[in-house]
Amino acid sequence: MKQLQLLLVIGAIIGSFSIASGQETIKEDFKPSTLNQPGQKYPQVNSQGYARFRIIAPAADSVKVSLGLGGRGGTVLHKKEDGSWMGTTEGPMDEGFHYYHLTVDGGTFNDPGTLNFYGSTRWESGIEIPAHDQDFYALKDVPHGQVHKILFPSKVSGPSAVAYVYTPPGYSKDQSKRYPVLYLQHGWGEDETAWSNQGHANLIMDNLIAEGKTEPFLIVMTYGMTNEIKFGGLRDFDITPFQTKLVDELIPYVDENFRTIADREHRAMAGLSMGGMETKMVTLNKPETFSHYALLSGGIYTPEDIKDQSDIKLIFLSCGSKERPESIKNATADLKESGANVVSYISEGTAHEFQTWRRSLKELAPLLFKN
Amino acid sequence: MKQLQLLLVIGAIIGSFSIASGQETIKEDFKPSTLNQPGQKYPQVNSQGYARFRIIAPAADSVKVSLGLGGRGGTVLHKKEDGSWMGTTEGPMDEGFHYYHLTVDGGTFNDPGTLNFYGSTRWESGIEIPAHDQDFYALKDVPHGQVHKILFPSKVSGPSAVAYVYTPPGYSKDQSKRYPVLYLQHGWGEDETAWSNQGHANLIMDNLIAEGKTEPFLIVMTYGMTNEIKFGGLRDFDITPFQTKLVDELIPYVDENFRTIADREHRAMAGLSMGGMETKMVTLNKPETFSHYALLSGGIYTPEDIKDQSDIKLIFLSCGSKERPESIKNATADLKESGANVVSYISEGTAHEFQTWRRSLKELAPLLFKN
Repeated sequence: MKQLQLLLVIGAIIGSFSIASGQETIKEDFKPSTLNQPGQKYPQVNSQGYARFRIIAPAADSVKVSLGLGGRGGTVLHKKEDGSWMGTTEGPMDEGFHYYHLTVDGGTFNDPGTLNFYGSTRWESGIEIPAHDQDFYALKDVPHGQVHKILFPSKVSGPSAVAYVYTPPGYSKDQSKRYPVLYLQHGWGEDETAWSNQGHANLIMDNLIAEGKTEPFLIVMTYGMTNEIKFGGLRDFDITPFQTKLVDELIPYVDENFRTIADREHRAMAGLSMGGMETKMVTLNKPETFSHYALLSGGIYTPEDIKDQSDIKLIFLSCGSKERPESIKNATADLKESGANVVSYISEGTAHEFQTWRRSLKELAPLLFKN
Repeated sequence: MKQLQLLLVIGAIIGSFSIASGQETIKEDFKPSTLNQPGQKYPQVNSQGYARFRIIAPAADSVKVSLGLGGRGGTVLHKKEDGSWMGTTEGPMDEGFHYYHLTVDGGTFNDPGTLNFYGSTRWESGIEIPAHDQDFYALKDVPHGQVHKILFPSKVSGPSAVAYVYTPPGYSKDQSKRYPVLYLQHGWGEDETAWSNQGHANLIMDNLIAEGKTEPFLIVMTYGMTNEIKFGGLRDFDITPFQTKLVDELIPYVDENFRTIADREHRAMAGLSMGGMETKMVTLNKPETFSHYALLSGGIYTPEDIKDQSDIKLIFLSCGSKERPESIKNATADLKESGANVVSYISEGTAHEFQTWRRSLKELAPLLFKN
């Protein structure tokens, strides 16, 4: 009996080792990714988070996928007798959305099986690894808001610039009610489509509102790489053009054309990554415009940044546990000590990717416009 | 002197022959297509309508473009020393928008240089050949309407189905004004994004309204291949699911959530190609729902189709001059003789493509909801 127990313990240890060294048995329960183009069977994902690719290119010499274990490296596909190329990631991927592309005989192409999403200053392929908490951004049978594509006059990006505006369920019915507004920015290489397409900001809000977890508000999303026409680095970033476009052009247009509560108490700004950097700059430059600030994987505020703590309704800082959560935790402690109303959130098991930001929005929304 | 004149005449004849046999000199005034991804230099188009492609694929053995002279055949690209593949169409293309894709070593991919547009039941590459009349769908410094993405409850495509709703400039400001509605359908293999993305329906309306050429109205666009889940042919097409989705699900939702004039006199239906077939079926099945009917490259009505001529405010029939304009002209004559208020339009120099339908919408809009 004791020997049996010992064998079980040894077996369990060997089992753990197998998993840790990447020898885990791959479950053959692959299903098409939810982001595939209509009718397309590949790419597929399994219940463990592995991704499997199939590309038709009979005369190619080499097909690679930029996506691999933990987002590093990539996956080399192998040619089958039917002229297709197949391959599976070496390990499970992080939960949530990932950008990727193919390299076919040295050329960069998108996977014809999937939908495209704007990232890295180009439309890239996207794949969705089912997450244990995917319910909060699922398309459910609840009342839905609308996402409006608007063209507003802009001297910065003119004659017209694009923005998307989420209006909550009921916005179009009760025409006397007015709403607060969250201005929500994408990251470097993305655009104004990112928060709805890959972020599901609209579905996150629809679901939170249906559950009574947040006050309904508008979300406005516009292009933030205003002075990055040549898609260069961030070193010489100048906030002026974007700040002008946002504060002097977009906000007045939104306040004139939507039923907003047009004061600083009912206006928030948030951004992910580079959008966080922009949020920090704009909120500190224009404290008279915004009262709620949120940086998602986008840096921190220090107590020295803030002139008048009592004037700020909320500071929200977040990132993934695979980023640098200590930085967020330390900044939060410092801000708390200085008297700020600060809330932080660490997304467990995720990195600098959209699952972190979807979860951050879900945590942020209920905190906004509470008083 | 006579000899010189003879030489000139012969020269002119030889010149004409050269042009007619495809030896026309290609003007080297190529510019990036307006549908390229941000920062991408290729594909390019010149002032004559030629298209030039450049694809990076150093190790590929063969790269072809599905687009060629008059849409037939295709263009074979040739490898350059720098590892790129280049080629120019054999002749000028028709004005306007064209779908295309690449074949790289036997595999189907999109051109990484261009934006994607949903057609042929997949997201395809798109290119824009500048048209002499492109001003009517240009983005101008005029007041702009909005395109709303809505999710409406649907038992046919449920739990939620997508539609896009164009609301004209001013819709969001004067909250007492109500508007007529045009339900506008895409063609086979396309979806609810086609009329805004490749059709520029919103810009066509913005420009017509700014010039005072049309009454403002709403345009609603939803997915019409409701019973084509397997993307099969049209032979066994059953209109029932789409008609239910449109008439019993979408129209009531739009009338409840937008400021419409919710009666048949202020409701029109139009569609291109397969969408025209659907328009014909639905309008004849539901004369109590629509009063204005339009088929764009989508067939004809005969006097026998119509039970009560006096009940129909407008029948509009159109197609490109490179389609079968005689069929439209004959049907128009027959309908006129039977007493119908029928208007027809032939788009000069275009085939079964979006330039025909952009122009058709421009001609149709001013005729709608006149009385």
